[in-house]
Amino acid sequence: MRLTILGCYSATPRTLNNTTSQVLEINNHMFLIDCGEGTQVQLRKHKLKFNRIKYIFISHLHGDHFFGLVGLISTFRLLTREADLHIYGPKGIKEAITLQLKLSDSWTNYKLYFHELTSTKSELIFEDNKVEVHTIPLDHRIYTNGYLFKEKAGERKLNIDAVNEANIDVAYYRKLKQGFDVKNEDGVLIDNKTVTFPAENPKSYAFCSDTKYKEDIVPVIKNVSVLYHESTFLEKHAHYAEKTKHATAKQAATIAKLAHVKTLILGHYSTRYDDLSVFKNEAKTVFNKVKLARDGKVFNF
Amino acid sequence: MRLTILGCYSATPRTLNNTTSQVLEINNHMFLIDCGEGTQVQLRKHKLKFNRIKYIFISHLHGDHFFGLVGLISTFRLLTREADLHIYGPKGIKEAITLQLKLSDSWTNYKLYFHELTSTKSELIFEDNKVEVHTIPLDHRIYTNGYLFKEKAGERKLNIDAVNEANIDVAYYRKLKQGFDVKNEDGVLIDNKTVTFPAENPKSYAFCSDTKYKEDIVPVIKNVSVLYHESTFLEKHAHYAEKTKHATAKQAATIAKLAHVKTLILGHYSTRYDDLSVFKNEAKTVFNKVKLARDGKVFNF
Repeated sequence: MRLTILGCYSATPRTLNNTTSQVLEINNHMFLIDCGEGTQVQLRKHKLKFNRIKYIFISHLHGDHFFGLVGLISTFRLLTREADLHIYGPKGIKEAITLQLKLSDSWTNYKLYFHELTSTKSELIFEDNKVEVHTIPLDHRIYTNGYLFKEKAGERKLNIDAVNEANIDVAYYRKLKQGFDVKNEDGVLIDNKTVTFPAENPKSYAFCSDTKYKEDIVPVIKNVSVLYHESTFLEKHAHYAEKTKHATAKQAATIAKLAHVKTLILGHYSTRYDDLSVFKNEAKTVFNKVKLARDGKVFNF
Repeated sequence: MRLTILGCYSATPRTLNNTTSQVLEINNHMFLIDCGEGTQVQLRKHKLKFNRIKYIFISHLHGDHFFGLVGLISTFRLLTREADLHIYGPKGIKEAITLQLKLSDSWTNYKLYFHELTSTKSELIFEDNKVEVHTIPLDHRIYTNGYLFKEKAGERKLNIDAVNEANIDVAYYRKLKQGFDVKNEDGVLIDNKTVTFPAENPKSYAFCSDTKYKEDIVPVIKNVSVLYHESTFLEKHAHYAEKTKHATAKQAATIAKLAHVKTLILGHYSTRYDDLSVFKNEAKTVFNKVKLARDGKVFNF
């Protein structure tokens, strides 16, 4: 997986601070997560190929996560896109986008599918043979979902020397990769584990922004490889977090610890803080493996 | 008057090309004209004080002139603006903005007035004691207006030495500034012109984007100090201009010549052209006083 942070600040775009948007590359997919104003320029700036985006996931309809979407959709049209585009987001997203396309008489020449979300329970919203995407219901001022991206368990890998040695016909290779024991050309049953290597551990990524501290997301994101959790504030401003339904760095770290995630990435910072290292220090008092999102930063995992 | 070009490119924002937006400072007003995606960041970049904007004029509802408006309105809210904001633009603009504010549950804490336009004739839409704003009906793929900003004729200036010499009481100064002859303290009628200087010539600015070549705007913009006229294409691509209802540099210059404007500013360039000087050269074959808009450029006139 490869995660590119296009923007990780809250509220409003500024000269040097972009609002929320990320690109997650996973098994040949390029998923776009949230789309604040200016996202299309950030995509260009980081030389990410627009055309590869086929699925967009919007957490909620606050402007700093959403106002760049209509522009991106329009730009796809101007670039004569033909591929379908699927958009997942809260109910209302279809009306907001289609009204603007109607007013500008600029209907897309590609197919645009809206998948509007209303459930407050985690649900599977996308699946192919390699990846699943689930919602993570969050608690913010308006209806909001995080998203959990999970690689499916892959196939076992052939130990080709051992396979040859065991005299197994090529017709059985598929079965071996799927973990079955098979008979060799002499009719002897071969233990799968003696001729294959284990599948790589499937990776997972949970995006949780925006939300107040919400412990009941823990079961949904349990053991993920990487958790991005918003930390709009520091503990000294916990009263602002409470009031605006955001989280502090320490609260994000507490969720990471409870969910036994491997790595926590902090983001969605209020621009009131000049020094981001304080977020990391605060989170580290609770959970050790903390990284800071920054606009343009790439995480490989 | 002071005109700051925030963006002067057509179609989509790019790393180095912003879509249409301009700030016109005139008699203590700071008018915002069009608001493509990213306009609020351009305002910050050029250190223009957001708070001074009280009137916004939107030409039409294509994204490259409009998609930054909802973000700017939201940012005003976050900056705890209290002053009223007036928005002039095509019918539909109110619904597009208010739907998005509704979906994000982010109503403004200041008063937002929409003045929706539907007329295809030039009309006076704003007036105070120093400035008038009129629409300039244009011909584009959707309903579009340019805007004409006109200073009102100012007052004559007192020639204070001559006024004292003529022995005129201070109570008559107001009348003198308004151009009347007045009696002095000895009862003698004083010729206004002998004790005052003429008022400065009122300035005017016409913004015309987007439009095909449209000669019937000439009477509306006759003799303006500065005309900004779109020139999306060069003559060699006149067929594209025809098809998309845009203008060429030469056509913009022809309008400038017919209207006897003082200065023509070209803009709204297609990003297909790397070298903008070609626009100037083409326009100069028809009209001599041509300037090129560029993002961030300031024109004083």
